[in-house]
Amino acid sequence: MSESVFIGVDVGATKILVGAVRQTGNIISSRRFKMEHETRAITLHSIHNALEVFMQAWDGPAPRAIGIGLVGQIDPETGTWLEAMNLPIKSPVPLAGQVRDRFGIPVALDNDVHAATMAELHWGIGTESKDFLYLNIGTGVSAGLVFGGQLLRGSKNYAGELGHMVVQSDGELCPCGRRGCLEPIVSGGGMLARVKKELPNHPDSILHSFGKTLTTHQIFKAADAGDPLAGKISNDAIDSLGTALVNLVNLLNPEWIVYGGGTLSDGWLIDHVRENVETGPLTMIRKSLKGIIPSRLNPEQVGLLGAACLALDIGGIK
Amino acid sequence: MSESVFIGVDVGATKILVGAVRQTGNIISSRRFKMEHETRAITLHSIHNALEVFMQAWDGPAPRAIGIGLVGQIDPETGTWLEAMNLPIKSPVPLAGQVRDRFGIPVALDNDVHAATMAELHWGIGTESKDFLYLNIGTGVSAGLVFGGQLLRGSKNYAGELGHMVVQSDGELCPCGRRGCLEPIVSGGGMLARVKKELPNHPDSILHSFGKTLTTHQIFKAADAGDPLAGKISNDAIDSLGTALVNLVNLLNPEWIVYGGGTLSDGWLIDHVRENVETGPLTMIRKSLKGIIPSRLNPEQVGLLGAACLALDIGGIK
Repeated sequence: MSESVFIGVDVGATKILVGAVRQTGNIISSRRFKMEHETRAITLHSIHNALEVFMQAWDGPAPRAIGIGLVGQIDPETGTWLEAMNLPIKSPVPLAGQVRDRFGIPVALDNDVHAATMAELHWGIGTESKDFLYLNIGTGVSAGLVFGGQLLRGSKNYAGELGHMVVQSDGELCPCGRRGCLEPIVSGGGMLARVKKELPNHPDSILHSFGKTLTTHQIFKAADAGDPLAGKISNDAIDSLGTALVNLVNLLNPEWIVYGGGTLSDGWLIDHVRENVETGPLTMIRKSLKGIIPSRLNPEQVGLLGAACLALDIGGIK
Repeated sequence: MSESVFIGVDVGATKILVGAVRQTGNIISSRRFKMEHETRAITLHSIHNALEVFMQAWDGPAPRAIGIGLVGQIDPETGTWLEAMNLPIKSPVPLAGQVRDRFGIPVALDNDVHAATMAELHWGIGTESKDFLYLNIGTGVSAGLVFGGQLLRGSKNYAGELGHMVVQSDGELCPCGRRGCLEPIVSGGGMLARVKKELPNHPDSILHSFGKTLTTHQIFKAADAGDPLAGKISNDAIDSLGTALVNLVNLLNPEWIVYGGGTLSDGWLIDHVRENVETGPLTMIRKSLKGIIPSRLNPEQVGLLGAACLALDIGGIK
């Protein structure tokens, strides 16, 4: 019996991870490449080259399909990488077609959060639930919404922009143009920016001592130690995330919330919003929420697994 | 060729509408019954009796299935009416089974907003779009979410509780226990309650003249005429609905928003939030929103059509 193998390509702003994955979610082999991204051409060359090197060295069964998870905006129907904020991709790249022409097998593209959500669906919480939210908070905020066992993509694949839910009336101006969005208050990038802005007004804050190495984990620890600035930043994050999650649970009636991403990885923020999320929604809705749990997938691998899942979906095996 | 006919039963707090509907959405005949609801037994008798009378008089082709749309909480999988706020149904009723036993054909139940959304999906905007929000504002607020041509039900059929999205930080206490929920600010019931509470502080308000016949349409007209209380109530509704809809569009990336319900029927509120909803979401997301339009279905019939759709879905024809 021949084994089905799928190639996943996890393209980030600084690295590319390529791997061969079994249908079971088992990673047979993987290799990390540096993402050189001085120009559009160099960026695309980095991706093509990583795949080329990996495929040349691969001596297992012929892969059924290739899946590529990318930062930025994707049109999965045409396999087009439309745009990326942190990479010099400012006009559409027909990436799936290019890779398909080179390797002669089906190629699927999607954004990194949709890909990670697909990994949850195939090999994480999706093995026991058809209705869940995958919450990812790191540099930014986004959510993967799975209902009836299907990833909710929206009309043009942009669904999941939880970061721009307004949670503070008359809050600070967000780059999106509205005031009081969740992302600047609760994301890692947002909290670090707030600290940087506020530090001059808090000469005694412990947070001065970390300089450029400051992380959200240190902000939370400083809040526990009584640092007023860290406390304010952390409390705003707790209040805002709690509001957003209760809104989301009322609206979508999920069975589980699964979380990942660097800002949530130490569990601090989730532990502080848990009571709010478990008591805030309408009675029947909160009763059907079974819990808020960390993803069981390895955070170092979830991007690669997600990319492989995209391949699984088009490779003839569901 | 025999014609397929489905029975729809639209159960409200004051009336029951029963009708025979073709697969095309054409209503062959319908009849309105009073909902007597002094006790649980009388309430259930009203429903069974309405169906009995209608079916006895029906002389067309044998119906394929019966669909019942109800106020309150429903478990569509078991066909159980769990609870209703405005009717004396405080413990579960196995209504689908009862009706199936009587008439010997499949029976489906769901709540009224899910049913109306199904009517939109089969015979309204769903004929040209697979990704839309059906926004209903009347006495309360709720939303039907359709993505990939499927109604999003959530894990226990409670999805769509848009009314309890928080839109005003530190707003007034909602019966749900949180502060600043959308429903008390933007629903017809909520606006009328706010006027009643505020009128003693506004002795000169035009709104005094309407007494108990006051409607939201009159509040909006008084706002246009410069009445300060009406202006405040209306402006709060505009701001809050705009915030909620932009949140929703960012989160779900719908192609259309379709609206219905008494509070939106004169178009005033939607006309005042339209610019916000068309400019507030993230660029790519707002570009994929085609518009905010009134439902093309007759508001007097949408409940009946929705109930018939529930029957269509289980009656062997999709």
